[in-house]
Amino acid sequence: MALAEAIAELEGVLGARLSTARAERDQHGRSETWFPDAPPDAVAFPESAQEVSEIVKICARHDVPVTAWGTGTSLEGHALPIRGGISLDLTRMDRVLEILAEDMQVRVQPGITREALNTDLRATGLFFPVDPGANASIGGMAATRASGTTTVRYGSMRDNVMALEVVMADGRIIRTGSRAKKTAAGYDLTALMLGSEGTLGVITELTLKLHGQPEAISSAVCAFDTLEAAVETVQLTIQMGIPMARIEFVDDLTAQIFNEANGTNFPAKPHLLIEFHGSEQAVAEASERFGEVVADMGGADFQWATTTEERNRLWRMRHGAYPATIAHRPGCMGLVTDICVPISRLAEAVSATKRDIEAAGLIGPVVGHVGDGNFHSVLLLDPEDADEFKRAKEVAGKMAERALAMGGTVTGEHGIGMGKIGYMRAEHGAGWDAMAQIKRALDPQNILNPGKVVEQN
Amino acid sequence: MALAEAIAELEGVLGARLSTARAERDQHGRSETWFPDAPPDAVAFPESAQEVSEIVKICARHDVPVTAWGTGTSLEGHALPIRGGISLDLTRMDRVLEILAEDMQVRVQPGITREALNTDLRATGLFFPVDPGANASIGGMAATRASGTTTVRYGSMRDNVMALEVVMADGRIIRTGSRAKKTAAGYDLTALMLGSEGTLGVITELTLKLHGQPEAISSAVCAFDTLEAAVETVQLTIQMGIPMARIEFVDDLTAQIFNEANGTNFPAKPHLLIEFHGSEQAVAEASERFGEVVADMGGADFQWATTTEERNRLWRMRHGAYPATIAHRPGCMGLVTDICVPISRLAEAVSATKRDIEAAGLIGPVVGHVGDGNFHSVLLLDPEDADEFKRAKEVAGKMAERALAMGGTVTGEHGIGMGKIGYMRAEHGAGWDAMAQIKRALDPQNILNPGKVVEQN
Repeated sequence: MALAEAIAELEGVLGARLSTARAERDQHGRSETWFPDAPPDAVAFPESAQEVSEIVKICARHDVPVTAWGTGTSLEGHALPIRGGISLDLTRMDRVLEILAEDMQVRVQPGITREALNTDLRATGLFFPVDPGANASIGGMAATRASGTTTVRYGSMRDNVMALEVVMADGRIIRTGSRAKKTAAGYDLTALMLGSEGTLGVITELTLKLHGQPEAISSAVCAFDTLEAAVETVQLTIQMGIPMARIEFVDDLTAQIFNEANGTNFPAKPHLLIEFHGSEQAVAEASERFGEVVADMGGADFQWATTTEERNRLWRMRHGAYPATIAHRPGCMGLVTDICVPISRLAEAVSATKRDIEAAGLIGPVVGHVGDGNFHSVLLLDPEDADEFKRAKEVAGKMAERALAMGGTVTGEHGIGMGKIGYMRAEHGAGWDAMAQIKRALDPQNILNPGKVVEQN
Repeated sequence: MALAEAIAELEGVLGARLSTARAERDQHGRSETWFPDAPPDAVAFPESAQEVSEIVKICARHDVPVTAWGTGTSLEGHALPIRGGISLDLTRMDRVLEILAEDMQVRVQPGITREALNTDLRATGLFFPVDPGANASIGGMAATRASGTTTVRYGSMRDNVMALEVVMADGRIIRTGSRAKKTAAGYDLTALMLGSEGTLGVITELTLKLHGQPEAISSAVCAFDTLEAAVETVQLTIQMGIPMARIEFVDDLTAQIFNEANGTNFPAKPHLLIEFHGSEQAVAEASERFGEVVADMGGADFQWATTTEERNRLWRMRHGAYPATIAHRPGCMGLVTDICVPISRLAEAVSATKRDIEAAGLIGPVVGHVGDGNFHSVLLLDPEDADEFKRAKEVAGKMAERALAMGGTVTGEHGIGMGKIGYMRAEHGAGWDAMAQIKRALDPQNILNPGKVVEQN
């Protein structure tokens, strides 16, 4: 790595948009969770794909790592430049390039956040549905194959990205996919890039699918005596084909944390939060049928959020679950788990996890995108207590192993980053070698976000 | 290539399930359309992934090509072993391995056909929705990323395959994906294999998503005065969020061909064929709203197919369009085109195509999965008339160029095979080189279906 030469050349291209200031480096070397800080040697702020290409070419010439940065909201340390080099901050590339309303599509730059995008779309009657909770950048969401509360209805980034522009490891700019709704033209490079966490290329433009803002929305919350009854309600609802836009599980401890943070008074029981989107008539029918399932399963304290305000309050509470959980134990940090299992095994996976947390003497509320079989526990840790951290890692390890034994995955939506790389061999076996073969073919110098996703030489 | 040694070794493994008989070779060297016959040197009939792995290892050792074979129904010559070697006939691997009803999933071998699968599923209340018309093998549908009439509602193979077992070019057996509904665990090898047309690996097992058989189904057909009115009806229906399970366009000539083949009496006008799936109430609502759109757009001769028999008859007619079209001009063969464009450009693309066909003095009815922006013309050719063939190729070329100029793709669902490889550079630019890099990394000897998808050395 010829770092000094690379930085000098990058300054020649970017001027003041290449920073080696301590504050910038520190900010781009921090993650939202427990990973040690890893500041880059410099931070670049490109304004076009052409500039990204030039930066990557300079870095390739001098063997300097390049790690893309969006909003820094990822939970597995994806954007930490653990081998130094350049942090490629894409926040200046945050424009909506073209709204294609007739085709229900939009072309955007990677640095735009999902909330900013939806604000820009408001007048069109369309919206971008993928909602991981955090106000992440669209580029980062694509790179981590993000999903969230609305995935049960609208799909994940895998389902909502049609085409990409990508700068490859040698600085070539390629385009993947098309604006057609489907294609059978060769290898699916779009899907390959989604979830590659910046290790195969840097996304510089995205064409996204949009959806019509629903005519009617109806949300509800209801309590269950047992976790099993809540999960069985979800299974039945899916099997009956009742179309849900969101269906979220929160456990008894999370209900209590909601009360602490929001002044609500949910009973200390497992709850489901649900939402329906559609025509007035379709939403009314779905709500009615769902209400019948809940009644059959012994659900209680059923409350419909009928006004926009009530509805927004409900989902703000759900989206605020992570900070509210951190606040539940002052001074703590969170180790966030993220497994996804076939829905037939979900109740079993959640109860075993809760038993493990209790046996380890930890505090860890459980929330889940149950329509997808995906759930998280935030294990609350005293940063000074090494033994507690060790026990939390053991619980996380048991969750991952159990997910694999059940035919699931060690990460439903947070990705690999630094936190899950140790499970890749267990999840993929020889498939992990195929991933490394692809990485070596497309990035032979290993300069794009090195140390992530694939086995390291 | 040390063919004789390879065949001797393969006979050692497979015995009589390795055939060099003329009839077998001829049958595996033929396609459904105009490509020249290309028989393999031998045909292997494996019965397990382990046997597929052994076959591939022997072929790798002797540098002999291996081309997988399902039902031979592909339309672009995908399964033609154009460089000789072994045709790997997977029809003996045609079992349902496990029905996972609670998770609405099924594990199958690649040789099972979609109709056989749905017959096996009948008692479960579930079905596999992807429907390319032909009774193709599930493995072949995955390898070509197939879609069809129901894709507008249920998605394509890309959306309905959760996990694969794949034999790689060196004989390694890998597993991709999982039984979880979503995952963010590394590169999406499942998506990479779908549409790779047997050039990156041989699919030996698939885990598929299933869907609940709808409580109610309602189908209709209606005529429009103009193509534009028919397409605009589709656009409006999508924008209003009316959930369609199928929406098919057929042009005036196809309506006439239906009449010839089925004794119906559709007017010689553009038609839409539509179907709704859902609860009784949801289907009634969707039908009513769709009826209003049709009326606004001046649609006429609106006929609902209310009984199962009427409905089956309607879709049998649509699925029989290809043979009925071939029969329309006795002794002819068909050159089948397959472009997909953004829906805002669909009417323009279809009318320009019809003008091109007329200007070239050809007969070519147009049908389309219009909800996806995908349409086909079958250009009917006298096999003896070289000039007619040349004119047909020119029309196909213009369609492909127009699709790309409109931001679409040269193949919505039929794939690359032999017919579309000449357009890959135009569609993908430098992205096509990235595909070749991946191919070389995963199949350095180029033994898996050589000559297809990627640029050839």
